[in-house]
Amino acid sequence: MIATEFRVDIPLWVVSEVEAAGRVLPTLEQRMALVNRLADRNFREGGGGPFAAIVVEQATGRLISAGVNRVLASHLSVSHAEVVALSLAQCTRGTWDLGASGAPRTELVVNWRPCLQCCGAALWAGVSHLVIPDDSDQMEGITGFDEGPVGEEWISQFEARGISVTKGIGVSEAIQVFQNYAEHVAKGCAVLYNARGTGTNA
Amino acid sequence: MIATEFRVDIPLWVVSEVEAAGRVLPTLEQRMALVNRLADRNFREGGGGPFAAIVVEQATGRLISAGVNRVLASHLSVSHAEVVALSLAQCTRGTWDLGASGAPRTELVVNWRPCLQCCGAALWAGVSHLVIPDDSDQMEGITGFDEGPVGEEWISQFEARGISVTKGIGVSEAIQVFQNYAEHVAKGCAVLYNARGTGTNA
Repeated sequence: MIATEFRVDIPLWVVSEVEAAGRVLPTLEQRMALVNRLADRNFREGGGGPFAAIVVEQATGRLISAGVNRVLASHLSVSHAEVVALSLAQCTRGTWDLGASGAPRTELVVNWRPCLQCCGAALWAGVSHLVIPDDSDQMEGITGFDEGPVGEEWISQFEARGISVTKGIGVSEAIQVFQNYAEHVAKGCAVLYNARGTGTNA
Repeated sequence: MIATEFRVDIPLWVVSEVEAAGRVLPTLEQRMALVNRLADRNFREGGGGPFAAIVVEQATGRLISAGVNRVLASHLSVSHAEVVALSLAQCTRGTWDLGASGAPRTELVVNWRPCLQCCGAALWAGVSHLVIPDDSDQMEGITGFDEGPVGEEWISQFEARGISVTKGIGVSEAIQVFQNYAEHVAKGCAVLYNARGTGTNA
C-alpha cells in the first residue's frame, strides 16, 4: 500500500509566542517583530531553518495563522514557513482562497523574500499584500540557502495578480537572525539541510 | 487558539488505479500513461484540477508515491499534484531529501511543466529526473490555468541543481485530458478555481 496522507504541524512554543505577542498587531513593525522572533527561535528549537511567516487581516492586524519552517521536523521539503502559515490560514477559513469575496483581505508577513516555491504558494493562496524586510541576495550570502531562480520582475508579477508588496520592514532584525543562524551552524549546532547535494534550500 | 496542523490525503480510487497499473512501470511511456489516467479521472471525481504526478525509482520504475491535485478537496491551495506526490514519497522514505545518499535515485513524472510553486517544490525535494509531456503554453491556453512566471531558462536551472528533464512523453494524451477538462468546465460540471479573481491556478 502506498502512503495516502501527509500532515504538518507547528510546535506549541509557536502558539505561546503568538499569545504573548497579542492576537492583534496594528502596525507592520509589530507584525514583523513577531515573525523575526519566531524565526530566531525556530532554528534553536531544531525543527527547521531560520524562517517564519504569519497571515493577518490586512486592515486590522488580527492574526489568522502563524508558521515556521518545519522541513527537519516534518521530513517534508515543502514545509517552508510560508506554506505552513498560508495552509493553516486556509484551514481556519475553510477555503483554498483567502481572497474569497466577503472575507477581510489578508496579508502574508515573512522574514525575507520567499523562495521560488513560496513565491508560487503566495501567488495562489489569495492574499492581498506581502510584507518582507528585503529581497536582496544578502540572506543567501549569510546563510547559504538557495532561493531558486526568482526573476528580477517578481514584484510586478505579484502586482499583476492583485498582490501589493511592501519592503523595508524589520531589516536589521532580520539580518541579525540570519547571522545568529550562521553562527549556530558554524558551531555545529544546526543541520544545514541540503537537497541534491548542490545547494541548500529555505 | 490558532490552527496548529494541516493534512492532505489522496482518495482511495488513486490507490486502486495504481494497483491496477502495477507497482513497477519500466518505461517512461508507462509511467506517463498512469499519470494521464489519474489526471483525467481526478477532475471528474471533483477533488481538484486535471493534474497528477508520480514519484518512481528512476532506474526500475518502481512506484514510490502518487499524487493528484487536491485543492478543492483539501481546501488548501498548495495541494498541487507535485506537492502531494513529493510529500508522500518523503513520508515513505522518512526524509525531506529524496536524493539522500544511498537511496535509489528518484524521478517525478507530471502531466505538464510544473507551475511556479511546483518548480520550486521539485527543486527542493531531492529528485534526480523530471519527466513531462511539454512546457509550452498550450495547457494554459486550453484550460485557463495560470502557471506563474516560470522563466524560459527553467530547464537549465533544474540541470544546474542536478535534475535532468525529459520532454515529449505522452503529449497527445495530455492534451486530450486538458480538452476533456475544458469541455467538463464548459458544461458547468467542474469548479474552475481562481485565486485573487485575476486568473486560475494549477
